[in-house]
Amino acid sequence: MNSKSQVMKKLFLELLLCILGCLGMKGYAQQNDTFNPKEHAVIKPERSDGRYLSSRGVLHGMLKGIRPRYAFRPDMTTEELKKWQVELREAMREIMCFPVVADQPAPKKIGEVQREGYRVEKWEAYPLQECVVPYLVLIPDGVDKDHPAPTVLCIPGSGETKETSAGEPELNPKFAEEEPQERWIIALPYVKEGCVAVVVDNAGAGELSDLEGYTIAPAYRYDAVARYLLELGWSYLGYNAFIHKYVLDWVKEQPIVNQKRIVICGFSLGTESLMVMGVLDPDIYAFVYNDFLCRTLERAIVMTEPDKNGIRPFPNSIRHLIPRFWCNFDFPDIVASLAPRPVLFTEGGLDRDLNLVRKAYEIAGRPENVEIHFYPKYAAPQDRKMLGIDSLPEGINRKTYFDLVNVDDPMHDIKAALMIPWIQKYLK
Amino acid sequence: MNSKSQVMKKLFLELLLCILGCLGMKGYAQQNDTFNPKEHAVIKPERSDGRYLSSRGVLHGMLKGIRPRYAFRPDMTTEELKKWQVELREAMREIMCFPVVADQPAPKKIGEVQREGYRVEKWEAYPLQECVVPYLVLIPDGVDKDHPAPTVLCIPGSGETKETSAGEPELNPKFAEEEPQERWIIALPYVKEGCVAVVVDNAGAGELSDLEGYTIAPAYRYDAVARYLLELGWSYLGYNAFIHKYVLDWVKEQPIVNQKRIVICGFSLGTESLMVMGVLDPDIYAFVYNDFLCRTLERAIVMTEPDKNGIRPFPNSIRHLIPRFWCNFDFPDIVASLAPRPVLFTEGGLDRDLNLVRKAYEIAGRPENVEIHFYPKYAAPQDRKMLGIDSLPEGINRKTYFDLVNVDDPMHDIKAALMIPWIQKYLK
Repeated sequence: MNSKSQVMKKLFLELLLCILGCLGMKGYAQQNDTFNPKEHAVIKPERSDGRYLSSRGVLHGMLKGIRPRYAFRPDMTTEELKKWQVELREAMREIMCFPVVADQPAPKKIGEVQREGYRVEKWEAYPLQECVVPYLVLIPDGVDKDHPAPTVLCIPGSGETKETSAGEPELNPKFAEEEPQERWIIALPYVKEGCVAVVVDNAGAGELSDLEGYTIAPAYRYDAVARYLLELGWSYLGYNAFIHKYVLDWVKEQPIVNQKRIVICGFSLGTESLMVMGVLDPDIYAFVYNDFLCRTLERAIVMTEPDKNGIRPFPNSIRHLIPRFWCNFDFPDIVASLAPRPVLFTEGGLDRDLNLVRKAYEIAGRPENVEIHFYPKYAAPQDRKMLGIDSLPEGINRKTYFDLVNVDDPMHDIKAALMIPWIQKYLK
Repeated sequence: MNSKSQVMKKLFLELLLCILGCLGMKGYAQQNDTFNPKEHAVIKPERSDGRYLSSRGVLHGMLKGIRPRYAFRPDMTTEELKKWQVELREAMREIMCFPVVADQPAPKKIGEVQREGYRVEKWEAYPLQECVVPYLVLIPDGVDKDHPAPTVLCIPGSGETKETSAGEPELNPKFAEEEPQERWIIALPYVKEGCVAVVVDNAGAGELSDLEGYTIAPAYRYDAVARYLLELGWSYLGYNAFIHKYVLDWVKEQPIVNQKRIVICGFSLGTESLMVMGVLDPDIYAFVYNDFLCRTLERAIVMTEPDKNGIRPFPNSIRHLIPRFWCNFDFPDIVASLAPRPVLFTEGGLDRDLNLVRKAYEIAGRPENVEIHFYPKYAAPQDRKMLGIDSLPEGINRKTYFDLVNVDDPMHDIKAALMIPWIQKYLK
């Protein structure tokens, strides 16, 4: 869900258009000066019979007609909730399309370095015959098979590497995220609290990138990976969660790991992989969801204000495209299905959606296991414009959308200050 | 398969980068002056064990590992060919995901105008509850239910409307294709030879476009339509072929149509819909394939030379993305499966692929039913560089790819001069 690179691209393109404008060269991006984007913000049928001529309109109508098959229902009984969780898990398994792979070598340790109070091991896994997936394991001094520790699988956001997230030196100076680096470190607060931290890359980023290390990193071409996965009938999220789950399955076999205290902490893009693993693997104890919570289908339906060239935004890139996802569920349904396992939200979202999650945990008998923090800008209820409102208005742009769902994008980062007391509460 | 708009975009972006370069502002698109794209053109494993670290590399390995389930085999017997055609049809039906829609009103005639020697009727169909699909029907004078005529369903290329393709005035001056318009007219040669021509739009174009008519037309945002279709588990081609097949099914019920002489003529993007309908509907008599023939999977595997920013090309946009397509077949397999129904190729392609089609028609007992013309630039066998060669080299760019598969892109247009004698031969 991280939109940093999208925002960068947008700014870049606007700069280009501005330069072109100055030079009087409009070329391909020509615009009609009489076109008023606001007038066309809401997509409506052009005809009185309610049918759309525009194919984009037809799709808008079809999107509005989706009733997700495994949507959470606040009126569920405890028994119905349990049955629904199993059904949702089955649907998730189906659309994630994990392959069955046999005869791959076991993961191998390929390096180790001692830091102050912990050591960092580098390992490699071989989830598919074509690939190698390196990951870092941060082990606090004193943790061993006789003293196993709670363990957190840390998944970076878009633009960050496992090294960024582990507070380790980058493998390539171009992989460095924007300063200050501390904003992107996930693992160290956990390690300092005595947990093992296992840190992975997202597919296509850092050590798993293609040529970006020579040129445009930390802007990675996730979409190139996503595109070919989609061609194969897979998806970026399906692949990413598959390689992360492969590492998680390894974690579950390590004697230094307290098997009853395995946690996933996902930042931004990493929250998607977190949700998939959380649904598929009931052995995971708890979750740190470091992003805002939203309904991505609704976002696609309401975020339709065109730019001055008549181009409506894509809410996000094809790395978030999972065929049939919206027909089954949306993010709030998925997180609700994690009940009653502890979950920490560090960047809020829309109250309506967070309330669904709260309700699920209430039905599951553990309402106290949901902890929610908003961005400071939206912490006071009176600053949340959609409080008590059930649906967002159509025809808005990205800026308005973010404001309505309580997102303070420039402040999107790792909220270590919220994680530490939560760790102390749940992982000791 | 039309790449005109891609080429336009590429030229535009290169122009922008050039301007930025002049202004000394490289911004987001910064490049490393020591990066040599040619050195990285071929995607290879970074390690001696043959595994890829780069996720893009993993995908490259997976793409190279695809063995399409319904690939044509030149050693088939006539019986095996027939069995394979049925299996391929079933697989096509499955990945095209046509919905079952009931209770929609019958198509309606909404207008009519007399031209010299024929009349043009405008009709509307209602294939889905959300949509209306207008189409044009060109009827030569003298054709009526007592004098039914061969009928050609004409499908435009990218950037053209049904009006362009029918030689009718555009509904919006912005919809006009580049001059001379005659290059894009599909229907009139058929009408002049006494055939009925039914002309449809591609989804998202012309009358089916969103806001492009105010701004950037004839550049249409096909990808916006494609994206949401993919989210729903459908695809641009699945949707486009569905609406075209709906019109085709109407054609099959019209008394003015000679039911034994229904032909599909597809230009560029329209050839994809042609292939789908051809496979799904054995009632179609013959095909005019107005584009070059290639293997799109191979194209994705070999066209990997990065630009100076380290970005490898997507061979085409997501409107061509059909999940699992490549796992089943590629274009030459599909066209081969149309045997023994007459097919005219107007823009050649790679001899290796065309020979597969020839072989299928030979097995089906009608080798004379394949007629192939190359672009004039590649008409002489000695000008076709890959003649007799079985696989294309990896690591090439678009320009080299087009040259190797015998494509003279600036000459990509409707080849009426080839269609007319073919019509006279097959449709009288």
